[in-house]
Amino acid sequence: MASTTSADQIFTEFREHSAAEFFKKNRQMLGYSGAGRSLVTIVHEYISNSLDACEEAGILPDVEVIIKKAEGGNPNRYTIRVTDNGPGIPKNFVGKALATIFAGTKFHRYMQQRGQQGIGAAGCLLFSQITTGKPLRVKSSTGKGKAYSCLLSLNTVNNKPIIAEMQDIDEKFSGLIVEGEFADIRYESGDHSAYEYIRRTALSNPHLQIRMVDPNGQEFLFVRSVESLPQRPVAAKPHPAGLSTNDLLDFAHASQSRKVSSFLVDTFARTTQNKISEIKDTNAAIDMDKDPKHMTWDDAEMLVNAFKKVKWIAPDASYVVPIGEAQIKVAIKNILDPEHMSVVERKPRIFRGGIPFVVEAAVSYGGNSGKKEEEGYSGNILRFANRVPLLFDSGSCAITKAANEIDWKRYNIDMETQPVSVFVNVSSVYIPYSGVGKEAVSQEEEIIDEIKLAVMEAARGVQRYVRGKEQVNFNANRYKTIARYVKQLSGDIGDLTKADKQRIERKLEGIVARRFPRTKDEKEAEEAM
Amino acid sequence: MASTTSADQIFTEFREHSAAEFFKKNRQMLGYSGAGRSLVTIVHEYISNSLDACEEAGILPDVEVIIKKAEGGNPNRYTIRVTDNGPGIPKNFVGKALATIFAGTKFHRYMQQRGQQGIGAAGCLLFSQITTGKPLRVKSSTGKGKAYSCLLSLNTVNNKPIIAEMQDIDEKFSGLIVEGEFADIRYESGDHSAYEYIRRTALSNPHLQIRMVDPNGQEFLFVRSVESLPQRPVAAKPHPAGLSTNDLLDFAHASQSRKVSSFLVDTFARTTQNKISEIKDTNAAIDMDKDPKHMTWDDAEMLVNAFKKVKWIAPDASYVVPIGEAQIKVAIKNILDPEHMSVVERKPRIFRGGIPFVVEAAVSYGGNSGKKEEEGYSGNILRFANRVPLLFDSGSCAITKAANEIDWKRYNIDMETQPVSVFVNVSSVYIPYSGVGKEAVSQEEEIIDEIKLAVMEAARGVQRYVRGKEQVNFNANRYKTIARYVKQLSGDIGDLTKADKQRIERKLEGIVARRFPRTKDEKEAEEAM
Repeated sequence: MASTTSADQIFTEFREHSAAEFFKKNRQMLGYSGAGRSLVTIVHEYISNSLDACEEAGILPDVEVIIKKAEGGNPNRYTIRVTDNGPGIPKNFVGKALATIFAGTKFHRYMQQRGQQGIGAAGCLLFSQITTGKPLRVKSSTGKGKAYSCLLSLNTVNNKPIIAEMQDIDEKFSGLIVEGEFADIRYESGDHSAYEYIRRTALSNPHLQIRMVDPNGQEFLFVRSVESLPQRPVAAKPHPAGLSTNDLLDFAHASQSRKVSSFLVDTFARTTQNKISEIKDTNAAIDMDKDPKHMTWDDAEMLVNAFKKVKWIAPDASYVVPIGEAQIKVAIKNILDPEHMSVVERKPRIFRGGIPFVVEAAVSYGGNSGKKEEEGYSGNILRFANRVPLLFDSGSCAITKAANEIDWKRYNIDMETQPVSVFVNVSSVYIPYSGVGKEAVSQEEEIIDEIKLAVMEAARGVQRYVRGKEQVNFNANRYKTIARYVKQLSGDIGDLTKADKQRIERKLEGIVARRFPRTKDEKEAEEAM
Repeated sequence: MASTTSADQIFTEFREHSAAEFFKKNRQMLGYSGAGRSLVTIVHEYISNSLDACEEAGILPDVEVIIKKAEGGNPNRYTIRVTDNGPGIPKNFVGKALATIFAGTKFHRYMQQRGQQGIGAAGCLLFSQITTGKPLRVKSSTGKGKAYSCLLSLNTVNNKPIIAEMQDIDEKFSGLIVEGEFADIRYESGDHSAYEYIRRTALSNPHLQIRMVDPNGQEFLFVRSVESLPQRPVAAKPHPAGLSTNDLLDFAHASQSRKVSSFLVDTFARTTQNKISEIKDTNAAIDMDKDPKHMTWDDAEMLVNAFKKVKWIAPDASYVVPIGEAQIKVAIKNILDPEHMSVVERKPRIFRGGIPFVVEAAVSYGGNSGKKEEEGYSGNILRFANRVPLLFDSGSCAITKAANEIDWKRYNIDMETQPVSVFVNVSSVYIPYSGVGKEAVSQEEEIIDEIKLAVMEAARGVQRYVRGKEQVNFNANRYKTIARYVKQLSGDIGDLTKADKQRIERKLEGIVARRFPRTKDEKEAEEAM
């Protein structure tokens, strides 16, 4: 074998690489696959960050997205500028916040937010850099002190930000403006477009005012329909029931408490002194006076097993803030303007033993619901996670799976032919996305089951209306067919009998009308046909 | 607004985290979602590494996988041990190789291999650690010097390996043995099982001998069916046609060459001095004498644009080594033992402008092809990337998409009812996986198109056989139906006419036999029904 290589030779090529290098090579994993999708990914990442920031600072969000063709004539090159009225980024954090992968305020907090990874914004910058070599232009002000502007790029070798031309500017505002130049992207229309992304963002965020200018200069304004901020999610304490041994150990080793008992009470939800006694009662070997920093895997495992033996109150629902039934109604009315809708907000549930989540579902019929096809309509599924629209990777999403498992016929709904939208929002302190690109909720059984229940409940709410509607259409159709034959028949009878054709027609019409009485709705439907 | 938070307050919680922390929290992204899938992911990662190592060292791989229930009675806890006869890991690299995320010999080489990320093995260890707290037991020897054993774990805070109990051992072997204890996993049977993973690995690696012992102690041996190693892929030079400005710039800045001209010739494939002149001819502003370390984005962009104007010879096919038609035939015969098969090896193509890839496809009919259903059979799709079976995430895979877009009726194939297997292997120096878990090939148009061509060609190869087969079944079915009526009819006629029923039956049978003559095959099929 001529090409034999020894282990020593092989390992001469051994290297470590940074997260930035990894995602530079595998950009499709962040959602940068295909020119159309890549543009939406950029818009999505910056809007999500703006909304998180505004809400955390208690500011009603006002966001503007401007997409322009870049100079130079490359059809796949654009500048994208996103402006928000949020709290801004302090100057000393701007590099880390926008140009470092795996850095941010969100990863370690057990709190419901849109972002949770510390990848999105840095990924956008990386994509701009590898497609155009241009830095990101940033302007920001926290409303205190001077505003500043700078240019940001990312050293992919060590995943560190590079800040250039940092300067104070004399502008009075609070918020963040990012502007980047990107190639290998394309502004498209349709179901997977930036416009659709923003429309759906408006649908799930009625407290948001958002304006978009497309590359043709056309302006779209989605007006705020609710004048108050959503309730602010509380940073959750982890619930003991869902804790893994490893997590418990990590918390223990990082704890400042002197004893296991106080560590448990301080760190975890629903853990009172009474619970501590109960836990001790299940296993006498548990040493509640031990220093948590010295906790071993076996100690932690004993505790986790004991946690499973005591009864816990479910996690506090205040950790998870759904959009709310009333707000969804306002938003759907505003954006889809349906003939009929049914909105369901389910109670909080838990998955993986202790992570709370809430599912909301709505089914709407008519108006701008569903999708206009060349002939007629089809139904569509609007997926959201923590109010963020999910436009891609529907095949691997728990929401799609749940919707597909529903027997729609039972609810008189035909997703192939009817103007129906199914809206699902999953809210949680931790959304288990199936991939780094965060476009699909992992198909965890507990989540799928809960989504199905929510959607079926919402479907029941439109069932009667849809049945009535279909009946009206059916009757009107039947009446129209009969009426056509009445005309033909009265002509033929007239020819045969030489009687007055119009008289025969009137008589026949009378018989039909008595035999098939129509409602006003049906008469309207018939005329519209 | 009571809960207003200023930017300064928000950013007090700012932190950086390591890749290990990220994947610890988002383990589903690595394939650790669901107990059944998690077990397969572990087996998959270690086997892939073993095969890469053996082939690189020129060793015919011999791999053993032993899956045992762990002690303690937890039904979702197992030990998994994988042993190979590969080159081993030098002692000073073992921590980095098996217990550091984003480290390895594979990421920076532009070379066809199973692994390419430097995540797999460290991900397994991380999963063992967070589910059982146990370190990984490693034994290895490179065949030179002493063998060693040690315990490995991973400090997730800084993504650094922790090596314990390192000691030399007195054993003579070359290879690697890893043994870990894992919880939250489950040994299952069926299409998504470790057994199926290994069976498919044997199918795409006929030079592999692999033995598995399942948790019930049952042993499965897949015997080597080809006694020679696959041709060794050559580390490729990047092809200029597929280069992005950013990549070119990175190569230039890392180059040791003094001039752009020599840098281009040394670094890239198909780049001769003649090409350099051609490139210069397209744009006089290109300075070929410049130091590549001083190349600017604009310089690089000029070059990339010039690359697009000259004619290039396609990338050298020797970079990409498919399994090969003859070897696929042997393997399919060995594992599926079909009645008929057709194997297609396509020529190398490129995607993203310059990354070479080769698609192989096979369609087999009968034997163990397809999937046995409660009644009859259905077809199945066996997906592979660089010989690695892809068992999950089929919905987001280019192979599934391509197969679903084929009009199977044209080839007399019915994937719903026939015992048909469609085998597709994509080989490339870089497989664009859709996610970090590497279970699906990203749906790039060029790849999908090429897979379709390959599968259609293979389908044509079985078309005549399947049509014959279906015709035989159809005729036999028809004959059987008629024969049933002959019996009934001759009885009825006999009753009516009082004639001899058996004589009538023989006469009728004679008529039917003259009207519908049957081949020997058809008679056999009829009797088998």
